[in-house]
Amino acid sequence: MLLPVPFSIYYQSTDINGLLLSSGICLVLGIAGIFLLPKNPQEIRAKEGFAVVSLGWLTFALFGSLPYLLGGATSSITDAFFETMSGVTTTGATIFSNVEVLPHGVLFWRSLTHWFGGMGIIVLTVAVLPFLGIGGMQLFKAEVPGPVVDKLSPRIAETAKILWGVYLFFTVLQTILLMLGGMNLFDALCHSFGTMATGGFSTKNASVGAYSSAYIDYVITAFMIIAGTNFALLYWLLRGKVNTLFNNGEFRFYIIIIAVATIIIGIHLFFNHTGNVFDSLRYAVFQVVAIITTTGFGTADYEEWSASSQLILFGLMFVGGCAGSTGGGFKVIRVIILIKFISNELVRLIHPQAIVFVKFGNLSLDRKVLINVAGFFMIYVMIAVFGTILISFFGIDILTSMGAVAATLNNIGPGLGAVGPTENYAHLPDVVKWILSFLMMLGRLEIYTVIILLIPAYWRR
Amino acid sequence: MLLPVPFSIYYQSTDINGLLLSSGICLVLGIAGIFLLPKNPQEIRAKEGFAVVSLGWLTFALFGSLPYLLGGATSSITDAFFETMSGVTTTGATIFSNVEVLPHGVLFWRSLTHWFGGMGIIVLTVAVLPFLGIGGMQLFKAEVPGPVVDKLSPRIAETAKILWGVYLFFTVLQTILLMLGGMNLFDALCHSFGTMATGGFSTKNASVGAYSSAYIDYVITAFMIIAGTNFALLYWLLRGKVNTLFNNGEFRFYIIIIAVATIIIGIHLFFNHTGNVFDSLRYAVFQVVAIITTTGFGTADYEEWSASSQLILFGLMFVGGCAGSTGGGFKVIRVIILIKFISNELVRLIHPQAIVFVKFGNLSLDRKVLINVAGFFMIYVMIAVFGTILISFFGIDILTSMGAVAATLNNIGPGLGAVGPTENYAHLPDVVKWILSFLMMLGRLEIYTVIILLIPAYWRR
Repeated sequence: MLLPVPFSIYYQSTDINGLLLSSGICLVLGIAGIFLLPKNPQEIRAKEGFAVVSLGWLTFALFGSLPYLLGGATSSITDAFFETMSGVTTTGATIFSNVEVLPHGVLFWRSLTHWFGGMGIIVLTVAVLPFLGIGGMQLFKAEVPGPVVDKLSPRIAETAKILWGVYLFFTVLQTILLMLGGMNLFDALCHSFGTMATGGFSTKNASVGAYSSAYIDYVITAFMIIAGTNFALLYWLLRGKVNTLFNNGEFRFYIIIIAVATIIIGIHLFFNHTGNVFDSLRYAVFQVVAIITTTGFGTADYEEWSASSQLILFGLMFVGGCAGSTGGGFKVIRVIILIKFISNELVRLIHPQAIVFVKFGNLSLDRKVLINVAGFFMIYVMIAVFGTILISFFGIDILTSMGAVAATLNNIGPGLGAVGPTENYAHLPDVVKWILSFLMMLGRLEIYTVIILLIPAYWRR
Repeated sequence: MLLPVPFSIYYQSTDINGLLLSSGICLVLGIAGIFLLPKNPQEIRAKEGFAVVSLGWLTFALFGSLPYLLGGATSSITDAFFETMSGVTTTGATIFSNVEVLPHGVLFWRSLTHWFGGMGIIVLTVAVLPFLGIGGMQLFKAEVPGPVVDKLSPRIAETAKILWGVYLFFTVLQTILLMLGGMNLFDALCHSFGTMATGGFSTKNASVGAYSSAYIDYVITAFMIIAGTNFALLYWLLRGKVNTLFNNGEFRFYIIIIAVATIIIGIHLFFNHTGNVFDSLRYAVFQVVAIITTTGFGTADYEEWSASSQLILFGLMFVGGCAGSTGGGFKVIRVIILIKFISNELVRLIHPQAIVFVKFGNLSLDRKVLINVAGFFMIYVMIAVFGTILISFFGIDILTSMGAVAATLNNIGPGLGAVGPTENYAHLPDVVKWILSFLMMLGRLEIYTVIILLIPAYWRR
């Protein structure tokens, strides 16, 4: 919370005292925590891991709300919590209808919550979740740089440092490239935080569209694609092993989905909106990438596009980025496994006696992984359906309910209907904002991590 | 096709020649078929079973179109095929904006296609699909009356006769009860065909609402519930074993879903529409049952109800009736298995070392059944999503695309948006009607039966 202070000073904004006070509160409570908690805790087991992860994110969202409240950005605890949860889950859904009037310190903090959230997610998916037996990353153990992860131990710290190095490298690179395109340091940093974390908070009301620059659009598109890629692969890429990236089945499928969706939507834009190949491509690829990576930046109002384009984007919301990226959603690898699962079932019907193995690359997939992915898909769909019905009880129309749930559960940000790319979440009832905040956390932490804490059996010894 | 002729004669309608000509064509081609096909075919194996089932339905839909075309109801082959496929798949989606002007013979044929479709489905799900290794009925083998089914043999014929007896019994009973409520024989028969097959074609433009009779509403509600119940259980019920019905987990869950949805929607209707407890209950239970059983009759325009009520109905569209009933959709038993699957996964996360069995009643579910149901769910969701995107390319709006796909894939009839309960499918482009006809067949034949024929490997020896 001290990091935004230099910007507050530089821009002479009104939030310096608020930021200092927020930092002070966290410092005092943090020191108190060190003294109050047991000195020599036992080794953390998988079971405690779930609580550490979920409560960690929740604690960040609670205390991270302080700069908004004390910095004068909002007086509503609901709104401050929603915005912070949206930040740290790298969602990017906002309750501010005019972000350009916010003090610079708060605005910087807002983008910074994305970046911290992204840091957390990288470690979570690559190092922690496989240990807990969930997430799609079991398949990638061999590809994770550093020592093989099999214990919650100092090894996580080593892996984390390597991956954070990659994350930092691309953030700095993007900041420089954006500044070369005419952005000032403040905006460039904020947009790089929002991109690399696949968050989507912008410092402009019109999001990235405010810059009306093809160069900036393409830079951000490229870095969104990077941020939606498995960071273990990016590490090998930086080490010069380009083949490791392009031989990866998940990465290739991810690129194919982006290409196909861009072509379909681009053709629609060409004939119905722009009449220009370059503009059609530019807006189509930006929006497709912004949605599938679950970033949620915008350069156009896709609610003016055809129903088919909107439905494709709605579908991509649920696909999400690659496993091991900062992207949310269901994850490309799981989609691949589902498709293999289904074709497997069909082969089994034609040849009932055959023993069929589901393969991924050279690996033959364990039945346990298949059941795991199938279970995750079912719980994901059920939560999306029940979430949509639940918020519709508070007077939200069908399309908005669907869009809001898809955009928060998958950590995208803008949805459809009254929470579309040109609107925000401010007008929703408080109770809906709490439900959506919960969905953001649920989606970001791969559902099981949170849900398991709600089961009485979890708390029994 | 000769069965409607007495009604044509009685009502002096203009379609007698058309019906006779249609019958003649089918007779000639049928006799030709007997002579042209091999005399002593080999025993039919599972593999051929898929083709027999799918092509059987397709053939019925093709030849069943003749009375519409030759009886002067429509000159469009697309429309005639759509209507017949909608009939024989017990969907009830119609392309006629004014059914009351149709000649009586054609109108009777239209309802009769439902009834024949329902007959086919009972045998298919109880006797044929388990043999092919699909459908949710593997669990019920023990409960199926007659000899245990394990071969495509005369045993199917025995089982079929018993279940058709049950089907006929309830159809006649409903017809009598409707006539006691003031319907004439023609309307009573047509509505009983539509009910027991969970079809939904009515002889009135305003569907069942045209009668404005609480008695008729409740009779049809009761028989829709019956038609959505496993026919094997109904057989035991008629044999006086009431406990067999009420001890059945699937039936109980089916009743619970109906009760909960009725209460929620009823409360909404009470406060926002009727202000009357009895009317609220009457309209709510009718619509909930009409949707979950996939019948699709209407007594009210649910598009005027709240977003939450519509979303609940939309969700129920995908639940569908019990396995072994004439109802379509995903089936209640599969929903139960999915819920057990998910809770199983959660228990496994808390106790990673525990070996957990998924139980249904006293049966411990085979892993194979679990994977089978999970695979079915995934393919079901994917088809719904891709179907929706596909038809949206033809200028259909988001809500209508979603509603049309849900209403045809689940064999309901009326959907949402421009294919809602007060509208019909006439205005859709021809290509969309063909896609939706395909979805009706896909949903009705439990997807795999049809899809497997599209795989090249199927046709290899």
